[in-house]
Amino acid sequence: MRLAELSARSGVSTATIKYYLREGLLPPGRQVNTTTADYDEEHLRRLRLVRAMIHVGRLPVATVREVLGHIDDDSLGRTIRLGAALWALPQAAEPDEEDEYVRAARTEVDRLLAALGWTNAQALTTISPSYRSLVLAVAAFRRLGYGWGAELLAPYAQLMHRAAVLDLDFMETHPSETEQVETAVLETILNEPVLQALHRLAQEEESARRYGFE
Amino acid sequence: MRLAELSARSGVSTATIKYYLREGLLPPGRQVNTTTADYDEEHLRRLRLVRAMIHVGRLPVATVREVLGHIDDDSLGRTIRLGAALWALPQAAEPDEEDEYVRAARTEVDRLLAALGWTNAQALTTISPSYRSLVLAVAAFRRLGYGWGAELLAPYAQLMHRAAVLDLDFMETHPSETEQVETAVLETILNEPVLQALHRLAQEEESARRYGFE
Repeated sequence: MRLAELSARSGVSTATIKYYLREGLLPPGRQVNTTTADYDEEHLRRLRLVRAMIHVGRLPVATVREVLGHIDDDSLGRTIRLGAALWALPQAAEPDEEDEYVRAARTEVDRLLAALGWTNAQALTTISPSYRSLVLAVAAFRRLGYGWGAELLAPYAQLMHRAAVLDLDFMETHPSETEQVETAVLETILNEPVLQALHRLAQEEESARRYGFE
Repeated sequence: MRLAELSARSGVSTATIKYYLREGLLPPGRQVNTTTADYDEEHLRRLRLVRAMIHVGRLPVATVREVLGHIDDDSLGRTIRLGAALWALPQAAEPDEEDEYVRAARTEVDRLLAALGWTNAQALTTISPSYRSLVLAVAAFRRLGYGWGAELLAPYAQLMHRAAVLDLDFMETHPSETEQVETAVLETILNEPVLQALHRLAQEEESARRYGFE
């Protein structure tokens, strides 16, 4: 397809597409003659992903380039390729500080992983930003005097594991490994607001079931 | 307790506590003499909540005042009191725009609520910001060419409903209705980062289980 059709099908303006091409976020099309290039479905798919990262995820161009680099690096094993792409996304982490609350939170998160038998997550604690985010989120509770520990976290962790199984099942419906990693990045950017909204709606539903609308 | 002890037990400086008192975010202590006031456990609890909203939730003072107003309004029924407090929290919503994607997303969300039998949530669609956030999050998927609909959303909604049951069970372990509404606000502010981190950790665990660390 020509640039105009790529623009029409993606809803992204030709000026923006040209900007993405210049920035290397989109691979060049097949040159038909000196002024015209041809684009295929893979360009359309990549364009939608770039748009999701920039417009929905509000990621800076340098981060998008880094994430795409991991997605396209098929020299990596799938877990590492997935991890590298997802870990390059911005994390909801607080500034680095190690105090008694962070230490107590880490003890609880470690107890949680052991109780759940998440041996893979245990193997990744030193490098995983998700592990660090969880420790900091639990530390925020503890700093306010709320003793959230492994026992209260466990049933939530089991629910989130079931969500992760759904995520990966859906991811595996895509044919190529590159598309699967792309899907995982999209799911992370787009699914988290969906899950958060579903959670709040479910709280309203359950609250009204228990207490009515008195 | 005196101001100094309130500060020590909460980890909030006396200057900040005085600022909260001036702004009406904390009720005045019981005046012992012209220069000294006495504070109790309720002040400590409220101070921790205010701190969570301002420091973790990054809410502006005016919003905190609004949320506290709903928490303290015991003329309201519990569902409405809960809803009013939670709905005053910032929502992850995009600017208001009604296009074909938003309309298609609303159709899917409405089908979802009907399929789940969430009749209370159905009754709240015109006023609930969570409903609107969900429609906009699904519309973001559809705008990128991903046809997320009621069938794919349903299993996630059921997991989030189980999380909401855990939330309310925990909330009900607190004695007074005011403390319960306070807990719900805290859970919303502090739990969402916990759930998000648990979800990402679970994805890593599941990914490594399926694909190893090749």
